[in-house]
Amino acid sequence: STPIRATLFPGDGIGPEIAESVKQIFLAAEVPIEWEEHYVGTEIDPRTQSFLTWESLESVRRNKVGLKGPMVTPIGKWHRSLNLTLRKELNLYANVRPCYSLPGYKTRYDDVDLITIRENTEGEYSGLEHQVVRGVVESLKIITRQASLRVAEYAFHYAKAHGRERVSAVHKANIMQKTDGLFLKCCREVAEKYPEITYEEVVIDNCCMMLVKNPALFDVLVMPNLYGDIISDLCAGLIGGLGLTPSCNIGEGGIVLAEAVHGSAPDIAGKNLANPTALLLSGVTMLRHLDLHDKADRIQNAILNTIAEGKYRTADLGGKSKTSEFTQAI
Amino acid sequence: STPIRATLFPGDGIGPEIAESVKQIFLAAEVPIEWEEHYVGTEIDPRTQSFLTWESLESVRRNKVGLKGPMVTPIGKWHRSLNLTLRKELNLYANVRPCYSLPGYKTRYDDVDLITIRENTEGEYSGLEHQVVRGVVESLKIITRQASLRVAEYAFHYAKAHGRERVSAVHKANIMQKTDGLFLKCCREVAEKYPEITYEEVVIDNCCMMLVKNPALFDVLVMPNLYGDIISDLCAGLIGGLGLTPSCNIGEGGIVLAEAVHGSAPDIAGKNLANPTALLLSGVTMLRHLDLHDKADRIQNAILNTIAEGKYRTADLGGKSKTSEFTQAI
Ligand SMILES: CC(C)[C@H](C(=O)O)[C@@H](O)C(=O)O
Ligand SMILES: CC(C)[C@H](C(=O)O)[C@@H](O)C(=O)O
Repeated sequence: STPIRATLFPGDGIGPEIAESVKQIFLAAEVPIEWEEHYVGTEIDPRTQSFLTWESLESVRRNKVGLKGPMVTPIGKWHRSLNLTLRKELNLYANVRPCYSLPGYKTRYDDVDLITIRENTEGEYSGLEHQVVRGVVESLKIITRQASLRVAEYAFHYAKAHGRERVSAVHKANIMQKTDGLFLKCCREVAEKYPEITYEEVVIDNCCMMLVKNPALFDVLVMPNLYGDIISDLCAGLIGGLGLTPSCNIGEGGIVLAEAVHGSAPDIAGKNLANPTALLLSGVTMLRHLDLHDKADRIQNAILNTIAEGKYRTADLGGKSKTSEFTQAI
Repeated sequence: STPIRATLFPGDGIGPEIAESVKQIFLAAEVPIEWEEHYVGTEIDPRTQSFLTWESLESVRRNKVGLKGPMVTPIGKWHRSLNLTLRKELNLYANVRPCYSLPGYKTRYDDVDLITIRENTEGEYSGLEHQVVRGVVESLKIITRQASLRVAEYAFHYAKAHGRERVSAVHKANIMQKTDGLFLKCCREVAEKYPEITYEEVVIDNCCMMLVKNPALFDVLVMPNLYGDIISDLCAGLIGGLGLTPSCNIGEGGIVLAEAVHGSAPDIAGKNLANPTALLLSGVTMLRHLDLHDKADRIQNAILNTIAEGKYRTADLGGKSKTSEFTQAI
């Protein structure tokens, strides 16, 4: 059978090394994927001044599935954040971050099993800001019915498809009654169509307090952009950090762009020291979207078992293994 | 010598019981304070329709020092949040929440010693919201140079006065470049006047991740309103919750209004079951502002020792004591 074409953006810093790890492991597992690799990142083509080509975007639009490594936004006045540009151009409206305790990797928490679903296109990320008068500036937070319904639909759809029992909408509608109020209204509307799923609402400050006290209180969390940014990092912290958590963006028209959300770690780049786990697990979520569950299970188990056994771990997990040794072990 | 007059707002729900506990302990410790008690809360005077009288506000303005219990905002269209109204009317520009691990009370963390200093008057709490068109709403986040400098000044002043080494400004200026950018600019300006204090900037999402991984990385944290709301609750969660953390508001003209920031717990109100710790420790911070350090030390030690010994603990801390027994033990 013909292989599935998927886009790969290795990204900056440690990106190429951890992308190499994904390619090797996918090959070893005989995953029927053919990568279409494009460079997107800090380095700018001197002729075109481009760090994000039309071809890169078209590749994702055409393949509808891709994997991205960390990307640093080039410094320069007309350059918007690369991550934000991708979200906007590909209309990546939902960002899904599963976060679960890794067996054998001890943190203060051993009972984490959370899914953060973040609205990824609007809210505090509108980019609309201006100076009213000298010394007085404002940022606009925009919430729309369309985007709120869309991410709420996705959250409930996800919860149902994954046998999850509860969806909690995180908000601050006691203060932002109109914006977060609209977001909640949309969640409630969607919740009514899923009577089998428990729906609740929790104020962001209280949510953070409860998460650090007892993360088992939550299941699937859905929320506006900035709260999703905050809560997903908090959740990652509970299980060890962004080096261990996958992330996947869902776009209009069925686009799926999985990504490692950690940084490009320039200090260790090129040294064969990086931990490829987040990108690997993101690759696994990509496989699940392609309904390649056997391959996904096999790779995910190999990753988790390797970490659990503990013989091969990268330095960030307290081990001594090189990226290549850890990859080989998996 | 004449006693110091201080305002007391016992508040709603468990408020009166925990305020009683404060009064008894302050009396036992011979604190030279005379309370001026006013009711502020949900219950509305049927004639005036008021839940916040001019006399209550004037009492704080005159005494310049007060203590408040939990307050529930009455439901009704023309009623703004009571907490917000107090912040606005008294210009309570900085909210200070110390958060430290309580000896003998085990949580997942035993090394917490953090001070959150929150800008308390603007940002996401502007109250400026409107519908642009049907299905599209916006909230305005306002950051001013004046309020940012004021809270930054307070944070560095606090850090210096309390022998703290580091101030971290928490922000999301990579997204909200103008608003959070202005906030950071003000913090940097103030930081220059305090070369003995280490100044750093940390992005809110990363801050949350680091806090749950290793809270000992931080010392004093200063930030815009909403981030302060979120981070202070997160920090409280690390050491056991809002029932254990004091809070103090600093207003223009030297006003100090200490407060318990937990809820009014209507389910246990009037049952002699509430934990008065947060209000007591808030009272202690009030005493420190009055330079009554001997009394403050004595009361604080008695509270911490009672909790550490563990013989008398209220139900929220896993004990069986009544509020009155716990109070007596202290
Ligand atoms: C890098 C930054 C713009 C980005 C965000 O704020 O969304 C990051 O924190 C993330 O979560 O992907
Ligand atoms: C009750 C609510 C309006 C308030 C806030 O958001 O500031 C509370 O969470 C707090 O932290 O004092």
